[in-house]
Amino acid sequence: MPKFTKTTSKKAGLPPGSIVPITDGKAAAARITVIDYDATSFEERSAQSAEECLPYKGRPSVTWINVDGIQDVTVMEGFGEHFGLHPLVLEDIVDSAQRPKMEDLGDYIFVVLKMLSLDAATGSVKSEQVALIVGADYVLSFQEVPGDVFDPIRERLRSSKGRIRDRGADYLAYALLDAIVDNYFSILEYFGEEMEGVEVGLVSAPTPEMLQTIYVLKRELLFLRKSIWPLRELVNGLLRTESPLIHERTMMYLRDIYDNAIQVMDTVETFREMLGGMRDTYISSVSNRMNEVMKVLTIIATIFIPITFIAGIYGMNFQHMPELSQPWGYFAALGVMGVIGLIMVIYFSRKGWL
Amino acid sequence: MPKFTKTTSKKAGLPPGSIVPITDGKAAAARITVIDYDATSFEERSAQSAEECLPYKGRPSVTWINVDGIQDVTVMEGFGEHFGLHPLVLEDIVDSAQRPKMEDLGDYIFVVLKMLSLDAATGSVKSEQVALIVGADYVLSFQEVPGDVFDPIRERLRSSKGRIRDRGADYLAYALLDAIVDNYFSILEYFGEEMEGVEVGLVSAPTPEMLQTIYVLKRELLFLRKSIWPLRELVNGLLRTESPLIHERTMMYLRDIYDNAIQVMDTVETFREMLGGMRDTYISSVSNRMNEVMKVLTIIATIFIPITFIAGIYGMNFQHMPELSQPWGYFAALGVMGVIGLIMVIYFSRKGWL
Amino acid sequence: MPKFTKTTSKKAGLPPGSIVPITDGKAAAARITVIDYDATSFEERSAQSAEECLPYKGRPSVTWINVDGIQDVTVMEGFGEHFGLHPLVLEDIVDSAQRPKMEDLGDYIFVVLKMLSLDAATGSVKSEQVALIVGADYVLSFQEVPGDVFDPIRERLRSSKGRIRDRGADYLAYALLDAIVDNYFSILEYFGEEMEGVEVGLVSAPTPEMLQTIYVLKRELLFLRKSIWPLRELVNGLLRTESPLIHERTMMYLRDIYDNAIQVMDTVETFREMLGGMRDTYISSVSNRMNEVMKVLTIIATIFIPITFIAGIYGMNFQHMPELSQPWGYFAALGVMGVIGLIMVIYFSRKGWL
Amino acid sequence: MPKFTKTTSKKAGLPPGSIVPITDGKAAAARITVIDYDATSFEERSAQSAEECLPYKGRPSVTWINVDGIQDVTVMEGFGEHFGLHPLVLEDIVDSAQRPKMEDLGDYIFVVLKMLSLDAATGSVKSEQVALIVGADYVLSFQEVPGDVFDPIRERLRSSKGRIRDRGADYLAYALLDAIVDNYFSILEYFGEEMEGVEVGLVSAPTPEMLQTIYVLKRELLFLRKSIWPLRELVNGLLRTESPLIHERTMMYLRDIYDNAIQVMDTVETFREMLGGMRDTYISSVSNRMNEVMKVLTIIATIFIPITFIAGIYGMNFQHMPELSQPWGYFAALGVMGVIGLIMVIYFSRKGWL
Amino acid sequence: MPKFTKTTSKKAGLPPGSIVPITDGKAAAARITVIDYDATSFEERSAQSAEECLPYKGRPSVTWINVDGIQDVTVMEGFGEHFGLHPLVLEDIVDSAQRPKMEDLGDYIFVVLKMLSLDAATGSVKSEQVALIVGADYVLSFQEVPGDVFDPIRERLRSSKGRIRDRGADYLAYALLDAIVDNYFSILEYFGEEMEGVEVGLVSAPTPEMLQTIYVLKRELLFLRKSIWPLRELVNGLLRTESPLIHERTMMYLRDIYDNAIQVMDTVETFREMLGGMRDTYISSVSNRMNEVMKVLTIIATIFIPITFIAGIYGMNFQHMPELSQPWGYFAALGVMGVIGLIMVIYFSRKGWL
Repeated sequence: MPKFTKTTSKKAGLPPGSIVPITDGKAAAARITVIDYDATSFEERSAQSAEECLPYKGRPSVTWINVDGIQDVTVMEGFGEHFGLHPLVLEDIVDSAQRPKMEDLGDYIFVVLKMLSLDAATGSVKSEQVALIVGADYVLSFQEVPGDVFDPIRERLRSSKGRIRDRGADYLAYALLDAIVDNYFSILEYFGEEMEGVEVGLVSAPTPEMLQTIYVLKRELLFLRKSIWPLRELVNGLLRTESPLIHERTMMYLRDIYDNAIQVMDTVETFREMLGGMRDTYISSVSNRMNEVMKVLTIIATIFIPITFIAGIYGMNFQHMPELSQPWGYFAALGVMGVIGLIMVIYFSRKGWL
Repeated sequence: MPKFTKTTSKKAGLPPGSIVPITDGKAAAARITVIDYDATSFEERSAQSAEECLPYKGRPSVTWINVDGIQDVTVMEGFGEHFGLHPLVLEDIVDSAQRPKMEDLGDYIFVVLKMLSLDAATGSVKSEQVALIVGADYVLSFQEVPGDVFDPIRERLRSSKGRIRDRGADYLAYALLDAIVDNYFSILEYFGEEMEGVEVGLVSAPTPEMLQTIYVLKRELLFLRKSIWPLRELVNGLLRTESPLIHERTMMYLRDIYDNAIQVMDTVETFREMLGGMRDTYISSVSNRMNEVMKVLTIIATIFIPITFIAGIYGMNFQHMPELSQPWGYFAALGVMGVIGLIMVIYFSRKGWL
Repeated sequence: MPKFTKTTSKKAGLPPGSIVPITDGKAAAARITVIDYDATSFEERSAQSAEECLPYKGRPSVTWINVDGIQDVTVMEGFGEHFGLHPLVLEDIVDSAQRPKMEDLGDYIFVVLKMLSLDAATGSVKSEQVALIVGADYVLSFQEVPGDVFDPIRERLRSSKGRIRDRGADYLAYALLDAIVDNYFSILEYFGEEMEGVEVGLVSAPTPEMLQTIYVLKRELLFLRKSIWPLRELVNGLLRTESPLIHERTMMYLRDIYDNAIQVMDTVETFREMLGGMRDTYISSVSNRMNEVMKVLTIIATIFIPITFIAGIYGMNFQHMPELSQPWGYFAALGVMGVIGLIMVIYFSRKGWL
Repeated sequence: MPKFTKTTSKKAGLPPGSIVPITDGKAAAARITVIDYDATSFEERSAQSAEECLPYKGRPSVTWINVDGIQDVTVMEGFGEHFGLHPLVLEDIVDSAQRPKMEDLGDYIFVVLKMLSLDAATGSVKSEQVALIVGADYVLSFQEVPGDVFDPIRERLRSSKGRIRDRGADYLAYALLDAIVDNYFSILEYFGEEMEGVEVGLVSAPTPEMLQTIYVLKRELLFLRKSIWPLRELVNGLLRTESPLIHERTMMYLRDIYDNAIQVMDTVETFREMLGGMRDTYISSVSNRMNEVMKVLTIIATIFIPITFIAGIYGMNFQHMPELSQPWGYFAALGVMGVIGLIMVIYFSRKGWL
Repeated sequence: MPKFTKTTSKKAGLPPGSIVPITDGKAAAARITVIDYDATSFEERSAQSAEECLPYKGRPSVTWINVDGIQDVTVMEGFGEHFGLHPLVLEDIVDSAQRPKMEDLGDYIFVVLKMLSLDAATGSVKSEQVALIVGADYVLSFQEVPGDVFDPIRERLRSSKGRIRDRGADYLAYALLDAIVDNYFSILEYFGEEMEGVEVGLVSAPTPEMLQTIYVLKRELLFLRKSIWPLRELVNGLLRTESPLIHERTMMYLRDIYDNAIQVMDTVETFREMLGGMRDTYISSVSNRMNEVMKVLTIIATIFIPITFIAGIYGMNFQHMPELSQPWGYFAALGVMGVIGLIMVIYFSRKGWL
């Protein structure tokens, strides 16, 4: 179960720009990896602090510095200082409850969004915040914990596959965003498969567990939507920005992300409506079965009540009950009961109640 | 049952512009047909590759190249190369999970949308992606599988019916779009007929199957809407484009498509609301019948319970029960039972419960 | 019951501008009436074809040509030819499933909308399409079947009442539109009266028929809304057009129609919400009554069950049942039953279940 | 119960600008009162016709002419003629079913809106239409019936309290609008108190009457909303008008009305949502109680059914029933019944059904 | 329980700008505190009246004057006079039912919004109105009652922590707004924890109290939303204002508040949807349990009814009942009963009703 809110209140009362990491990541030292490349050269190494990364900043090659572990205040303050990050930007980076957004700060563009992954064990969606600082020839990426969806990009950089090594920092940033958004589709596929499974079950034999699954999926989608909805605005901001940091030829690629973001939203909305439909199907299906059971049982009871009454009458101990002494009395009583039962069965089936 | 999501995840991690066909079409060789015409001449042939089509590109006549089978990577790459298609455009063409959209790329306009058809057997809507590349004097159309709604247009081209042979590539593109959108009305008509059928049944005798049909129709409409909704934006994009590829006199025709797209959307929304109303009608109808059954049965039970109790009293074996030895006892007991039953019937009908 | 969709599919595959009448009107010859007037003169006659009307077109006087019967292809093609109507406009005129809209084609303004009337017998709304062609000094009006709401306008023209004879073709078009929109209020009044009737009944004694009426009204309103909703956009189009065909002093009158259109929409929406409220009232009212019935009946049953059990005990035939031989046994048993019954009644009424 | 629609159909077919009063006000002679003031002078009198008021029009002082009784056609036509009112404006003034709106006609600004009041007896909202004509140095106000919310303004004018006597006609118009909008808050307060009353009751003991009240309040709010919603647009129109009739320094006051109008709307929407919540509370509360009753009663019945069956067995008259002749038979039977009853009670309470 | 509406009607009829405090604060004398600071100096004192504060107004240092107790008319009028507040602004400050908004009045910017706090005892949200007047070098803040969320700011001012002492009045105003908005997150956290508690309970054992809690939370959120929704517009107004009172470098900070406001709204909406989902879960969970109970109980009853009938038959006292005298009669009857019972159990479990 995703927590409903992150504890952001511990920030209350602090001056703006205070670096108070709000994350589920454990308090370990940050892991910094540096990848520096251009069309011909490629270097990959790890670093201990922002200072170590500083030399790469001036070079004409593109540098991608990835930081895992935003709770390491010392490292974060180092990046703030050496890369000239605005205090509010730094505050946003370390606050993993941040709403996805982009901001153009002149020297760099700040992008923050959610990287989603599936917890294979519980089937729930895990959300990790990724912040990007896109400069003229460098990209900083900040993550809460190690592990991300960027490995194929690292592979393409190493093997110089595609056009990524020929392009600038903006294209790298695009590639990172694209990897994150593409991954949303995997999440939706998982949801789609879950829903198909439930739907098949609903037709054959609805169980309360299915309803539970429907509610869980619905809530997961609600969280998903909250993460994805601002994405459209974010990419739109990148498309409309007049920052020289983003080249004209990258725009077409950003438009592609925009299309994908809209498609993700569309699918989320469709899924939500379908889950609503499934819930209705479940409820009316269960109610149908219940009605059927109750109706048949009630009818059985109703048929026996009047004939049991007749048996009760001849079970009375009055001394003067003429029928009792007749030899045909017992059989007549049985006959009357049979006739009454038959009449009721006929009446009920005529009414369409059987 | 339409699949909930197409497996787009196999693309995750690949560089943008990778040609990974995502389609339900079988992996067969693509079928290419070329139609080249102007007001006076007409030629129709088939081709094996994009190279074969290349000579038609330079001619002043209009060329329509139709490709069935986007999963044929070799052919698709050929078109990408020889017709100068942007890698992202090519990627979108072969990804049949694409959201309908249009893009103006200067040399050509890229349009992708859904062609719908009814699966006569199951009554479900089949959706096939159609991509159009509209150039100065050629139109490329890419489909997933053979079979489309364009035969009347081919016929008009062959027989030079209407004004189609006198106009340019933009008019041909319009004609193709128009054929696709016109076909949506057939789908809606089918839905309308299904709904009329259900509605008639709901009034006479509602069955759970009708509710099932309502839910299925509702879900089909949901998918339909997802395919159709972006259409409006698409046509609007064509109307507002300042591309010289679309002539002024074609605008009026595009406006007509726009009107049709809005009307399709309106009808889909109305159908959705009507299905909601039908569902309500079904539920309250079933609940009405159920209530009536339960009420009558419960009343029968309630009437017999007190008089059965009286029979029980005189069935007790106490030695000293004065009434038992009276000659009138039995008849008095029957009378009392009758009176009590009568009083209850009168009371219940006064209360309006019968 | 209004049909859900008109059969527009028979047009599929035809070239645009094909004149394929889609109407419920019978295939009879069209009836053409011509009214020609200015401040001083007035002429009214009938005609057989568009050619006959042609001489009126050039005159400085205003000419109103009304055509009943759009299924008469010959006549319609005549008007298309002689009044220079665009093929798509002509196609729209004869397609009675057209969405209300206006188009400014330079030489004339094309307006198409729905004229509604009540079928007195069934209480359902009948919808007839009216198309107007507003030229410099003429107005063409096309209707599906004879019979319309324009008689008061004809009367005003004949008797020169109001300012209609002093104004141009645009004012005539306004008068026609105004007559159609004013008539919507009559429809809404009818709905309002129906709803008042149902509401009064809901308070006194709800019946399933009332629920049925509510659903029927709701669906009728849905159709009404579909016809009226685009009206606002239509009139707005007329208000914003810069066509010299509409004079400045007519604008104030069009604004009045705009206000009316909004008021009609408001009322439709309010009615829809009120019908929703009535449905809720009905359901909770029925459920209340049902609950009350079931509760009382169940309580009666529950009171008798334990005391019937006691009677059952003393109906057992064991040889050694000490109570049976006591002279006070019978009365004690009756007393115990009475006490138990009383306790239960008291308990139930304390619990507030009675 | 407010009538659903006013009978506006009697206007159908009349030329635009026809003065056909549509009002619930009785057909009596109009009552005209004239207040003429500037910073130093003040005159208050009544008049019989528009002609009598005419002399005040030219004076530099501000004149407020109030007319009660729009059904007096003669008087209304007099105002139309002598104050140069456009026929459509006059038609709107006498049609009390008018939607609130403002129109700038150059010489004067026309404002029409609803003045609401509570019918103390029935607790329903009465709506009266007020039309204002704001000229350079005069304000005409037209009401349906005598009695309004303007008395405090008259008092302030007489006693020269506040700044009203120092300002022009636009400030007077503002004061009138402000009085009307302020009064909406009283209506909402009444609704709020009703709702608090119901809510307290819902917690302690829900009754069907409360549900009825909820529905009535909901419907009243629906009507309220229909009257208030267009107000925002109306005041916005006044704020954006460039008419010299409204002075810059009055704008701040109009903005205040705008804020109030939004606040009224907010409260109406919040109330609507709260009533929805109350309805849900009522329904689940009733359903809870019902379930509890049914469960307990059903359980009682279920416990007695098997033990009554045992009594039935030993009530059978077979000659050979070994248990019957045992001296311990009766007590054993009672014991068995007791044990069975106990087991069922334990089972049910273990299951949590008791 | 928050009151539904504040009694604003006592203002009705008064001239605009009347100072009629509408607040829940007790009628005590206002408490005025003055903080005057620049980068080097700091002074903190209390005052009795607006006159006492006047000397600080002219100084180059920044002055923050906080007033607790808007019901003190004398003090409020003093501020109105000495700080040149517009009568309508003053009226808005003392009316605690004001909708959050900002207004740029040239000499100063007027901001009014809600400061929320949790009543620890009842768990309900308390709302207090805060009004800010932001001048060139002073900020006035007006509160209803003593006690606020500004203590950390006072501390930062005293200890010169952060950059607050180096900045102007606009930064101080930002800090106050930021403190208020940050506090909203604490409220939401409290709601989130309440909801998690309910959700855990819903899965294990749903109780009517949980439903009650859901409804209460839902209503609290409704009030919260009403307070927060206008905030976005308010901050947007500050961002778009061209007033020289707000420096360019403060804009970035205001944008941060804007982001926070949107995030608060997002969370409120998500919470509302989740509460809706919880309500559905509760209802279907209760209905599930109820159905199960009723089904099992009804089945028990149904099984015993036919076999009790058989016992009834052999309890009849007819003289000629052949079975009665058979030695195997009793056991045969018991056997038949057992078989019938068994058959029904098998039948019911085959049907899946058990």
